[in-house]
Amino acid sequence: MAEQELLVKMALTSWNDQLDRSGKLFDSLTDAELEQHVAPNRNTGKYLLGHLIAVHDAMIPLLGFGDKLYPELEQPFVRSPESAQPNETAISALRASWNKVNQTLASKFNALSTKEWFDRHNSVSPEDFKKEPHRNKLNVLLSRTNHLSYHRGQLIFLQKK
Amino acid sequence: MAEQELLVKMALTSWNDQLDRSGKLFDSLTDAELEQHVAPNRNTGKYLLGHLIAVHDAMIPLLGFGDKLYPELEQPFVRSPESAQPNETAISALRASWNKVNQTLASKFNALSTKEWFDRHNSVSPEDFKKEPHRNKLNVLLSRTNHLSYHRGQLIFLQKK
Repeated sequence: MAEQELLVKMALTSWNDQLDRSGKLFDSLTDAELEQHVAPNRNTGKYLLGHLIAVHDAMIPLLGFGDKLYPELEQPFVRSPESAQPNETAISALRASWNKVNQTLASKFNALSTKEWFDRHNSVSPEDFKKEPHRNKLNVLLSRTNHLSYHRGQLIFLQKK
Repeated sequence: MAEQELLVKMALTSWNDQLDRSGKLFDSLTDAELEQHVAPNRNTGKYLLGHLIAVHDAMIPLLGFGDKLYPELEQPFVRSPESAQPNETAISALRASWNKVNQTLASKFNALSTKEWFDRHNSVSPEDFKKEPHRNKLNVLLSRTNHLSYHRGQLIFLQKK
């Protein structure tokens, strides 16, 4: 196997592993548990779930796969802190959106060739990409995998000890 | 730049970015703050600092760089939960070990060629590596970067809001 192909496989395995662990965690928590704060004065599980959906949703246009599925989640879950306003989104809707956005990404990822993973992402211009070739699609995947790990480390606190 | 070389650079940048953020966080916290639990009934900052040092230290033999610097940290900070015993290690000593182990890894990483990053790590046999070529040194780096992100997401709760 070519090393590039291997590398893409490693990055996808890492992403899928984090998604799988996060999905199992969300599934193990009741709606009431997701309403709890992960630590005193910190975000609730619900807010972090919405935040992760919105950040993953933004990968769709960033990676050139099309339009966001849930553009309405950006304002409450990315641009605003949890304290900004009461949030009316139902947790059941967020659970469905979590699955849908990750399934959508998975189908797009599967259709991407190894070479395409090394193409630029859409927040870098073709001119800048020539000078900064690390600003490719695979780098977005690595970065979002770390982002997911970061918040999963917080969400785990909702599990009873 | 060859794509393999680019990929190694991306993975190292991601690791260094997480290390840098974690180091700044540790530097911003007093010893008394590191003695606090990151959330009720969860680990203290001190335990997580010791845990990260021990896990990074174990990368030295795993990646074929030599012997661990702090083998004595494995028992209290990896094999045992925090509740197992009172831990006498001074936080000042842990701060120094954090810097030393990461500097040691950095110097070894800098000396590694792109090709060597795709060699097997030391917990996979040459035979198994032929069948599972993703079990290479670079995969260890990706995995430990996610591990660091996970615990950084918890340590951030020690910062005053």
